[in-house]
Amino acid sequence: MGGDHAPLETVRGALMAQREAGVSALLVGDEAAIRERFAAEGGEADRWQIIHAEDAVAMDEHAVEAVRSRRQTSIRRAAEMLGADEIDAVVTMGNTGAAVAAGVLIVGRLPEVERPGLGVLLPSRGARAFLIDVGANAEARPRHLAQFAVMGRVYQEHVQGIANPRVGLLSIGEEESKGNTLVHEAAELLSNEAINYAGHVDPAHVFRGEADVIVCDGFTGNVVIKSAEATAEFAFGELRREVEKRRMAKLGALAMRPALRAPRRQTDYAEIGATPLLGLKGLLLIGHGRSRARAVSNALQTADRAVRAKVVPTIASGLKAPTG
Amino acid sequence: MGGDHAPLETVRGALMAQREAGVSALLVGDEAAIRERFAAEGGEADRWQIIHAEDAVAMDEHAVEAVRSRRQTSIRRAAEMLGADEIDAVVTMGNTGAAVAAGVLIVGRLPEVERPGLGVLLPSRGARAFLIDVGANAEARPRHLAQFAVMGRVYQEHVQGIANPRVGLLSIGEEESKGNTLVHEAAELLSNEAINYAGHVDPAHVFRGEADVIVCDGFTGNVVIKSAEATAEFAFGELRREVEKRRMAKLGALAMRPALRAPRRQTDYAEIGATPLLGLKGLLLIGHGRSRARAVSNALQTADRAVRAKVVPTIASGLKAPTG
Repeated sequence: MGGDHAPLETVRGALMAQREAGVSALLVGDEAAIRERFAAEGGEADRWQIIHAEDAVAMDEHAVEAVRSRRQTSIRRAAEMLGADEIDAVVTMGNTGAAVAAGVLIVGRLPEVERPGLGVLLPSRGARAFLIDVGANAEARPRHLAQFAVMGRVYQEHVQGIANPRVGLLSIGEEESKGNTLVHEAAELLSNEAINYAGHVDPAHVFRGEADVIVCDGFTGNVVIKSAEATAEFAFGELRREVEKRRMAKLGALAMRPALRAPRRQTDYAEIGATPLLGLKGLLLIGHGRSRARAVSNALQTADRAVRAKVVPTIASGLKAPTG
Repeated sequence: MGGDHAPLETVRGALMAQREAGVSALLVGDEAAIRERFAAEGGEADRWQIIHAEDAVAMDEHAVEAVRSRRQTSIRRAAEMLGADEIDAVVTMGNTGAAVAAGVLIVGRLPEVERPGLGVLLPSRGARAFLIDVGANAEARPRHLAQFAVMGRVYQEHVQGIANPRVGLLSIGEEESKGNTLVHEAAELLSNEAINYAGHVDPAHVFRGEADVIVCDGFTGNVVIKSAEATAEFAFGELRREVEKRRMAKLGALAMRPALRAPRRQTDYAEIGATPLLGLKGLLLIGHGRSRARAVSNALQTADRAVRAKVVPTIASGLKAPTG
């Protein structure tokens, strides 16, 4: 029920993921509305398992309170099923705060983790950096960044197969003197952690592969990915407008179309689908509120791969191990 | 002497700005090195006024201390001339912290301003938003954001001619409940200021013209512009690579070249040149450390226009006026 286009695009995305990759999803939410959507899309609603939840957390609600006090919300119902091991993963395009709250309160944190972190693999020419946290928590203390660093290291090492991943700290400038108090305090902690610490990473270099893991507080990480999103949208939008003004350019664009597609996709949020909230006892992925069917389908396929890659058990045992 | 390519690119940029727009610059720094560069570039060094400064603040130095204790640095010498009204503006591609420190300690703040703010006009399809602060201060208190809001309003109203500019507050999400402590406290202050307050602006929407002024702390603003820079570089770099793989796309790109140029330029830092540090008694502009001749020339031309537009006296009198 979450996101700007639910349940229509959610149902379409579930159908797409099944068609494209055989992913079988349960849908949690308003059963009548979901069945109606299935019918409208020509899907056989009775072949899908729908878990009724009469309530839903809205995008602009104060999330923690809503998850705590209202027992019939779809995100809470889904988290309960995940906590009870009835399902392998939860994917939501809804309120990020509600998803984090449901994850922490109902699925539960791994013992080594105080705050879960939302991580994304950034686009890159070479190895992709894992940026964590991109918005699970609007505020963070230095030790939370150290925990993100350890989770990110385990993710890159054991899920992506990168040996001895380099961990960088996002700051405004590479010099140690730059940055704010959080950065300075986190730098001190990180240099004492059992990680391959690579120092500061400037936001201008996040796509250059200088580090395999980049840690930051969730406010800053959210600003990074949304600024990137805004820039890509703007640049490609302007490109389209400029092309449409010019006859020669229009012909050129036709010939270029396959070449244009790759960078547009690499910088398009909807292509990523959803990203894992690390540090929980179960697999919870959070997608963009603007997600349409393509993004929902990609998110379900990402979840499917993450289950098969045993992301959660790998993180759990990696956190227990003394070093990477 | 500042930036990664001084004095070579600085001298080239000064020559370019004079050739293109008749801007006459004084150069402050190591006189022998600068004269040598002029000679190498075929410029007549004796037609240029060079103010010797034997010292310079390096890019990775702790800036405040350097400006305070070392009296012969080029940024300090330039700031002294600005403070004494011997020149109309200072442009630097050097250490941002040193420029801010020299501005505050030597040029001095306007009486209404506790912290100067570095502002940039963002690219946009329509009216361009003014984002302030993009890095003058790594940390800010809510009242500093309120001061940035007033300076930004005055800049947009009196320099850019926008009537009753809308002032937004950068946050992760448009809902009031989102954001960190700084955002929540600043929102309360801003809604009581004599400004046309437009609420939260999500980083994903910064190029959409939802607000004419967007305020944030300097760490966050710096992350916004550098993430945007990184994304544009990455996307256009990938586009070039994809095009080069394909014969048809190469021909297409030739036909598209004029259309490609506009969005590339709009998102290229070097085209902006330098941005004003508002809140000082004199005009000080700070450019990118990576600036080459083109950026230096653009920066000098921007400074020239800002002097003619009387930016500093306008801000000073605008800050005294009760409302816009």
